[in-house]
Amino acid sequence: MPSISNKGRQMPASPIRRLVPYAEEAKRKGRIVYHLNIGQPDIYTPQVALDAVKNFTGNIIEYSHSAGNESYRKKLAAYYQKLNIPVTSDEVMITTGGSEALLFGLMSCLDAGDEIIIPEPFYANYLSFALTAGARIIPITAHIEDGFALPAIDEFEKKITSRTKAILICNPSNPTGYLYTREELETLRDIVVKHNLFLFADEVYREFVYDGKKHTSTFEIDGLEQHLVVVDSISKRYSMCGARIGALLTKNKEVYASALKFAQARLSPPTFGQIAGEAALDTPPSYFDEVVTEYQHRRDVMVGLLNQIPGVKCPNPGGAFYTVAQLPVEDAEDFCIWMLSEFVYQNQTVMMAPGSGFYATPGLGKNEVRLAYVLNKESISKAMECLAHGLKAYHQVKELAM
Amino acid sequence: MPSISNKGRQMPASPIRRLVPYAEEAKRKGRIVYHLNIGQPDIYTPQVALDAVKNFTGNIIEYSHSAGNESYRKKLAAYYQKLNIPVTSDEVMITTGGSEALLFGLMSCLDAGDEIIIPEPFYANYLSFALTAGARIIPITAHIEDGFALPAIDEFEKKITSRTKAILICNPSNPTGYLYTREELETLRDIVVKHNLFLFADEVYREFVYDGKKHTSTFEIDGLEQHLVVVDSISKRYSMCGARIGALLTKNKEVYASALKFAQARLSPPTFGQIAGEAALDTPPSYFDEVVTEYQHRRDVMVGLLNQIPGVKCPNPGGAFYTVAQLPVEDAEDFCIWMLSEFVYQNQTVMMAPGSGFYATPGLGKNEVRLAYVLNKESISKAMECLAHGLKAYHQVKELAM
Repeated sequence: MPSISNKGRQMPASPIRRLVPYAEEAKRKGRIVYHLNIGQPDIYTPQVALDAVKNFTGNIIEYSHSAGNESYRKKLAAYYQKLNIPVTSDEVMITTGGSEALLFGLMSCLDAGDEIIIPEPFYANYLSFALTAGARIIPITAHIEDGFALPAIDEFEKKITSRTKAILICNPSNPTGYLYTREELETLRDIVVKHNLFLFADEVYREFVYDGKKHTSTFEIDGLEQHLVVVDSISKRYSMCGARIGALLTKNKEVYASALKFAQARLSPPTFGQIAGEAALDTPPSYFDEVVTEYQHRRDVMVGLLNQIPGVKCPNPGGAFYTVAQLPVEDAEDFCIWMLSEFVYQNQTVMMAPGSGFYATPGLGKNEVRLAYVLNKESISKAMECLAHGLKAYHQVKELAM
Repeated sequence: MPSISNKGRQMPASPIRRLVPYAEEAKRKGRIVYHLNIGQPDIYTPQVALDAVKNFTGNIIEYSHSAGNESYRKKLAAYYQKLNIPVTSDEVMITTGGSEALLFGLMSCLDAGDEIIIPEPFYANYLSFALTAGARIIPITAHIEDGFALPAIDEFEKKITSRTKAILICNPSNPTGYLYTREELETLRDIVVKHNLFLFADEVYREFVYDGKKHTSTFEIDGLEQHLVVVDSISKRYSMCGARIGALLTKNKEVYASALKFAQARLSPPTFGQIAGEAALDTPPSYFDEVVTEYQHRRDVMVGLLNQIPGVKCPNPGGAFYTVAQLPVEDAEDFCIWMLSEFVYQNQTVMMAPGSGFYATPGLGKNEVRLAYVLNKESISKAMECLAHGLKAYHQVKELAM
């Protein structure tokens, strides 16, 4: 039997999906599992997007342009321009999810052995895309004590080598919900320009910012134009994760031309997703007002209740719909599995994502979990009550075992 | 300005899409361009697939399982079993087009510097996927004289080194239309088993075989089980290229587990494509009877007319809907561009794919073109008439220039 590649062996299994069998087993036993582990929103997709797909009148589901339908790119460029992101339709490439945009960007900018600096904790799949591109992730640790703010500039300087090609940020952040300030982005700009690096900015949660704050795009920061590759996605924005539509934005013509060659190889992004995505741009602003208000309430409920649990520490994130909390346990993964396999409270339990999967530095995040507030407030309240009881019971079990 | 990756620079531009600006210019001048250059069929998508999408009743377009919806995988496994392809739903992975299946397969089996042997001419995008995976393509030249049959076994033996990890075939072949015999597949099996290689088989044109012949899947060849990675796609089968749905089939559990990790990183294949694809499995057999009859007639018309043109040589392909023809020109790419930019016959011209883009060996295929018979018989006849006049006029121009 031939052996698989080293790459295939090294590819990390999803730290979240690893727990799925335990959740499935719990459900088979008839238990209610509150899924705070993944970013699958329960918010309805805008009707205008669903209708557009239903109203498809073609007789053939044809390939589109490799960069995506021109009509969609034009409309998207207009949407970005309204947000002070000055891109034309030729600087926008429609991709199969934000994932593909990041992969095309990494492939276009980094060779095998090149380094990309990413503040950790970070979205776990960045590891997979870096490995696919053969690039090395160099983490810079952000800390729960200051809500996972951008680490100090000298932390970056220390990590920059001759192999450093890029810095990657997610703003607002998955998993921490941290919203970068304009000053932090300007700090990043200074490093990036000084060392002639690319800046990858994953801005897929752009719309989800709270407390009246405003999201600042990296495109609004002067001097970054030729350095910037922005990853976007409609998955969370319009609650249409399954459409598999994202976008790559760059004003760097070499990067765009290279990404387009990768795009041509895979022919085109999905037709129906593009139809839904283009129509979704007509979603009334009231949709977002409601959604953002709803998420903010959910965040307030979750973070408030979390901080009432003895030993739990949780910052108040400014955006996205995730938060990373510190739990009074030694091994959060063990605790998460235990919650699914051993614990039950009023026939309910909670599924969370263990924090260590979001760190590249071994040993970090072991007592942290990521929680997504993608359920309604009532479910979140119940899940937090469940978690509080779970932590208590877990300690009793651990003490007994000692 | 930071510089892009070597990979991005080396990535080949699509040899077909390179001619697009010339075609666009011809159309701007009001000319009819017969597109024989790409495999975008004009056949209607089965109504049952279009209806399934229209009847989507969900309120949220959610992520699916990373391996694709279980209901779809089960139905697909039943479809394969009917074709003597004995896979279970756990050995089928739904991918974003056949492209992604091939990419996941290559990533899972080959490391940087590993070699994959491919009979040429081959589907041009194999180059791009190999480059993405860091693998080296080692071509073995098939010849137009014997209709692009599998090269002799000792040609393969000569190319095998310690870095050889796999052989890749496309059956029936894009671009040649060649349909491999059972004996040829057994020859491949012997090489693959002897040298402990993977065999990648791109079988996306499985249904399109003519003259009463039957397609033999590599899965029907004994002794290949652990070596086999089959790439499939619904793009051509149901004329739904834009659905972006394919599949990876393997009984090798290590390969499947690795591919699944790549699949998890990109989250899930497109929801609407999966809905359409699952429904398409209920397409009545009469649909294929009609489509195959239609393509066979088109092939007969095209190949017959091609061989009537002085100096043109074209084998009679057994499957798919492409053929590679030799033209009486020195540089087919120059001729193809000239046809679009300089030539016009009764306000019409023809777009073809230059042959050299389908060869890895420099200099080969220079007097060849790939033609797709994806237009109706009347259009094909007109296109061939146009081509005959074009060749005549091109020779006059070239002689005058001498």
